[in-house]
Amino acid sequence: MANPKRVLIVGAGFGGLAAARRLARAGAGLEICILDRRNYHLFQPLLYQVAMAGLSPGEIAVPVRTVLSKYKNARALLGEVNAVDLGKKTVQTDFQEFEYDYLVLACGAQHSYFGHEEWEPFAPGLKTLEQATEVRRRVLLAFELAERETDPVKTRQLLTFVVVGGGPTGIELAGSLGEISRFALSRDFRKIDPRQTRIILIEAGPRILATFDASLAQRAQRDLEELGVTVWTGMRVSGIDASGVRLGNEKVESKTVLWAAGVKPSKLNAALGVELDGMGRVIAAPDLSVPGHPEVFIIGDQACFTHGPGGRPLPGLAPVAMQQGRHAADNILADLRGGGRAPFTYADKGSMATIGRRRAVVEMGKIRFAGVLAWYTWLVVHIFYLIGFRNRVLVFIQWAWAYISFRRGAQLITNPGWRSFPSDGQQP
Amino acid sequence: MANPKRVLIVGAGFGGLAAARRLARAGAGLEICILDRRNYHLFQPLLYQVAMAGLSPGEIAVPVRTVLSKYKNARALLGEVNAVDLGKKTVQTDFQEFEYDYLVLACGAQHSYFGHEEWEPFAPGLKTLEQATEVRRRVLLAFELAERETDPVKTRQLLTFVVVGGGPTGIELAGSLGEISRFALSRDFRKIDPRQTRIILIEAGPRILATFDASLAQRAQRDLEELGVTVWTGMRVSGIDASGVRLGNEKVESKTVLWAAGVKPSKLNAALGVELDGMGRVIAAPDLSVPGHPEVFIIGDQACFTHGPGGRPLPGLAPVAMQQGRHAADNILADLRGGGRAPFTYADKGSMATIGRRRAVVEMGKIRFAGVLAWYTWLVVHIFYLIGFRNRVLVFIQWAWAYISFRRGAQLITNPGWRSFPSDGQQP
Repeated sequence: MANPKRVLIVGAGFGGLAAARRLARAGAGLEICILDRRNYHLFQPLLYQVAMAGLSPGEIAVPVRTVLSKYKNARALLGEVNAVDLGKKTVQTDFQEFEYDYLVLACGAQHSYFGHEEWEPFAPGLKTLEQATEVRRRVLLAFELAERETDPVKTRQLLTFVVVGGGPTGIELAGSLGEISRFALSRDFRKIDPRQTRIILIEAGPRILATFDASLAQRAQRDLEELGVTVWTGMRVSGIDASGVRLGNEKVESKTVLWAAGVKPSKLNAALGVELDGMGRVIAAPDLSVPGHPEVFIIGDQACFTHGPGGRPLPGLAPVAMQQGRHAADNILADLRGGGRAPFTYADKGSMATIGRRRAVVEMGKIRFAGVLAWYTWLVVHIFYLIGFRNRVLVFIQWAWAYISFRRGAQLITNPGWRSFPSDGQQP
Repeated sequence: MANPKRVLIVGAGFGGLAAARRLARAGAGLEICILDRRNYHLFQPLLYQVAMAGLSPGEIAVPVRTVLSKYKNARALLGEVNAVDLGKKTVQTDFQEFEYDYLVLACGAQHSYFGHEEWEPFAPGLKTLEQATEVRRRVLLAFELAERETDPVKTRQLLTFVVVGGGPTGIELAGSLGEISRFALSRDFRKIDPRQTRIILIEAGPRILATFDASLAQRAQRDLEELGVTVWTGMRVSGIDASGVRLGNEKVESKTVLWAAGVKPSKLNAALGVELDGMGRVIAAPDLSVPGHPEVFIIGDQACFTHGPGGRPLPGLAPVAMQQGRHAADNILADLRGGGRAPFTYADKGSMATIGRRRAVVEMGKIRFAGVLAWYTWLVVHIFYLIGFRNRVLVFIQWAWAYISFRRGAQLITNPGWRSFPSDGQQP
């Protein structure tokens, strides 16, 4: 028998982990190694619930090595990739060099401030658990500081929340802020009335939820407005600092600005020496390989895949990454068995976004619905896809409890510098 | 009717919160304000389980204002006390000055390195949630780095854990490390065998669990040794740095040192201008007031109370703080009703410590037992005293799942600087 083929997978998100599991199950003849900067797989679709004090970090994350524990041909390692040499077939990490027979790149995306990186301290994004607990800290701290503030102008600034970006994440954040202020916190304060909280959702495009049908976007906007969210479309942010957000001549005074506007792919892409799209994503071949490098696959948010119907790039969604991960694995297995590779086709199961309690929108091809049924669909799908039986039970209990009590389960102000906003200087 | 009496409570630990609830329930004629640096009450007896990846922070903490939500005469504020003027009856905070008619000081304790504050970066203590997730980060990171390490000397250093201090916290940490390495992680690694992990518990005194009966301490030591923990008694740490622990001429090479050795009271005490004991705690009068200041009460770890049988100071335990908090509240209420104050007497319900799965020790007066029954007692008592119905359910599920699966529920390496030890420099 030949030497086992070394498959190196970079990134343990939805794409990388799906590829690793499919390959590990296939078993013989493979030596699988999955590298990630983190020791856990993160269920990103529920990250906004950590940011909004509904769930704890441990409930939406599961260690990569635990997921792969039973597959003895798969190895998980904590590490960061510094460079990929497609010619030599090597990967440089922070601790050693890897040689590979097959490489699966699934490094995902991070936040993009469209060239305004100086906004980041004042408007954190939502891609990591640290960012989520940082957003949670700022939101809860704003209410705490407002309760002890005597100046009405400063109180108003503390009780103004701005969410930049009208995609699903922005909707979910703004809707949750509406619910927190109107329900979860409403009885807990003595001086301020959290129901007076101002929440502004800013979208540069002509409408929110641009990837959804216009009717659902309208419904979502109405739902948001019922929760007290003011939706501003067609408005472009021109500045963010410690005091708030600037939009051309206008200025919104706010201590808490959240960024849900743009993403960019891993910075590894630029150094690969292959063709990228306008966003910096690697343009994938129909079989998901990197053109000219059939042994290298590129999947998920790191890739641009346009070979589907209509030629439009696939969106940056978990189902796309998972299906691509499994497909890349299948193509590797096809090579080893001497079969031919299949082109990837995305089976669109639809997309959804939740606005709040009993409010969501679901779009599955021509089928579109909103309201309570959409909300239940959202709940079931998210519990179902969550990895780990215990996590499912814990999240289910947190949600059931929040539904009954109108409260949130993780209202903790933690992290270093927990008592100040970035502008105020650190007071540990 | 007279003006309501202003009661200011500093600290929302077991003592302060017990006082606030007792006073709030009494209702009329009182204006209660509770100040804390944090927005949550922390269930400290289970903090070691957060450090050992068994529980999430949100499961052992509950927002102070949520606990007091239904009492309209009680107000919770986030803030830090800078100074107390017992003469003027004022308290200076980071945001305003408070005047009080009654003051309850319940600021607790923090870690003490016996004058070696330079050890702290290399040997974190366990008093806050940030410290707990920091300990969790270091412990899990040590295993991850060992898995990818090729140098056997460095691997051994990474797989050596030192716990300083043989009290209940030290026992619980060392026992949990034994369980994690032998059970929770045993199947997840490919290169290292976590069962080879070296765990050393260092105690300066002649035996561990000095406050327990010698027979229970012996039993606990045997239990620890069965879990692979080496217990060194009568050994004094003379140095801690990035490479390990020095004990006189000996040196233990270890990347992960945990500090569970000493505490000191709030630094407010020194500025009060009243009599302190050798540890810096305020010596309380029999009615829990500060001698010479009948309107000021001092409770919990911040106080030294010696008026019980035998004249020995009461230990720094949650039941002491809770009973004192309720008693201080009762004495304030007695004043208002024109009754006489009662001296405080501690109703000793016993003490307990857990070593691991089905292993614990319990001492209630003359009744002492260990093993499975003690462990169940420990579980029931800790679930019972945990505040919040949801927290009880979540912790119960985490424990039941851990018991069945031999796994842990929160194995996340998070926090800034998550990929390095203090000595290695920050690699964000």
